[in-house]
Amino acid sequence: MTFINKLNAAWAANDSLLCVGLDPDMARLPPQFQSAPDGIYQFCTAIIDATADLACAFKPQIAYFAALAAEGQLERICAYLRDKYPHIPLILDSKRGDIGATAKQYACEAYDRYGADAVTVSPYMGSDSVEPYMEWRDRGVIVLCRTSNPGGSDLQFLDVNGRPLYQHVAQLVADKWNANGQCALVVGATFPEELAQVRAIVGDMPLLVPGIGAQGGDIVATVTAGKTGSGSGMMINSSRAILYATAAVGEDFAQAARRVASETRDAINAAR
Amino acid sequence: MTFINKLNAAWAANDSLLCVGLDPDMARLPPQFQSAPDGIYQFCTAIIDATADLACAFKPQIAYFAALAAEGQLERICAYLRDKYPHIPLILDSKRGDIGATAKQYACEAYDRYGADAVTVSPYMGSDSVEPYMEWRDRGVIVLCRTSNPGGSDLQFLDVNGRPLYQHVAQLVADKWNANGQCALVVGATFPEELAQVRAIVGDMPLLVPGIGAQGGDIVATVTAGKTGSGSGMMINSSRAILYATAAVGEDFAQAARRVASETRDAINAAR
Repeated sequence: MTFINKLNAAWAANDSLLCVGLDPDMARLPPQFQSAPDGIYQFCTAIIDATADLACAFKPQIAYFAALAAEGQLERICAYLRDKYPHIPLILDSKRGDIGATAKQYACEAYDRYGADAVTVSPYMGSDSVEPYMEWRDRGVIVLCRTSNPGGSDLQFLDVNGRPLYQHVAQLVADKWNANGQCALVVGATFPEELAQVRAIVGDMPLLVPGIGAQGGDIVATVTAGKTGSGSGMMINSSRAILYATAAVGEDFAQAARRVASETRDAINAAR
Repeated sequence: MTFINKLNAAWAANDSLLCVGLDPDMARLPPQFQSAPDGIYQFCTAIIDATADLACAFKPQIAYFAALAAEGQLERICAYLRDKYPHIPLILDSKRGDIGATAKQYACEAYDRYGADAVTVSPYMGSDSVEPYMEWRDRGVIVLCRTSNPGGSDLQFLDVNGRPLYQHVAQLVADKWNANGQCALVVGATFPEELAQVRAIVGDMPLLVPGIGAQGGDIVATVTAGKTGSGSGMMINSSRAILYATAAVGEDFAQAARRVASETRDAINAAR
């Protein structure tokens, strides 16, 4: 099954556009996980178990593992997810960007080592930095387009023949890079009007949308701007708001994560 | 000592602008390293020993390690280099690009875990994707500007107010991101005239220049276009041409690597 088909099935099965981001910041984990040798694995798999029926995808952010030399735990988390929840897409958020033989190594890392269904990549180095990933025909390539951070405008909003750069990226991916139907785009939630412009360019292509929750993006505006004609087409990511949801001393972190994930999924669905 | 000072000292000490790239492709290693459990470490440290007096920097490409789950060997290679050749800058080529808290994790990976003097990053996500690295004041940030691959033109050559995008990136880094003097740029050797344009924009800022050797860039044209007024300012990278230099059956790989590194350094120096 291809990434896109798997994503379509997960959207339907869980009635959810919510992508749960796995950004395990050691300083914010419950104390019992900070002291355990495989605490990141234990924490992340508990979050997965608590939210798997509410999510359309899980998205580990590899930087948090790389900083702690915890690639082994990431491998085990990915294996756990593939084994226990094989119908939920696994997105490796690594924003890789390199050419030719090197890009192929990164594709091996994402698809073979971690078994990811899709990986995030940067468009800055162009077509031959993305093509090597396409050799894995059943996997997805999620290209950075418009990011949710303030500095995103430094390049992405530069005017290119009357249109901002990020719209050229959307057009390039829609017209050329998506020839095999393997592509999706990253478009942040903090600029709903720009999300709508990308949606108009790319048709039904899936969009990975960070920026709600801790980053402040508005859910109703985001869904209204980014949904397809059938009210779908988005993986709306929330990481910290779910992972570190515990509101009161004594509240179980997994129950809290489930509560916030459920509320977020429902708020998204109410706006579809 | 800052990255820039260390680089200046290495240029002078070894009379060299040659950066030796460490891209250990398992299929191309001599057979004795393919079968050894720490073969990558053994191979890379042998290359380092054979070329350390000829190089101004070493640049491991992390993708080759990540694909093989060999981060532990990369840690040991970096430790070996820092310990035995502390005067030679260590550049982690990872082309990271992410924002805020996540970028800081990547900075921890490069600077604290691997002890790199500098790291390559992508500019696509803008200023706040680069600033977190600057908190390590003695380290360097090498920003992708104009890359040596054919697809590099897809974005980098788009016209922005009469100038190609890569020149805007060069200007942005020179005018803003380099406030602390920590920046360098990646500019490929395959377009010497563009290298000259970047040099004109950024003054004496160091340039990391891939694309000679296996990628076909011309050394004389590259040095002429990219050097500073004092005939320096470049880290001209060669990876595969040095690592896999063995020309005849029976030739020792390390001797062959030294031969090609020496020839390349001398060819560069003849053009300065």
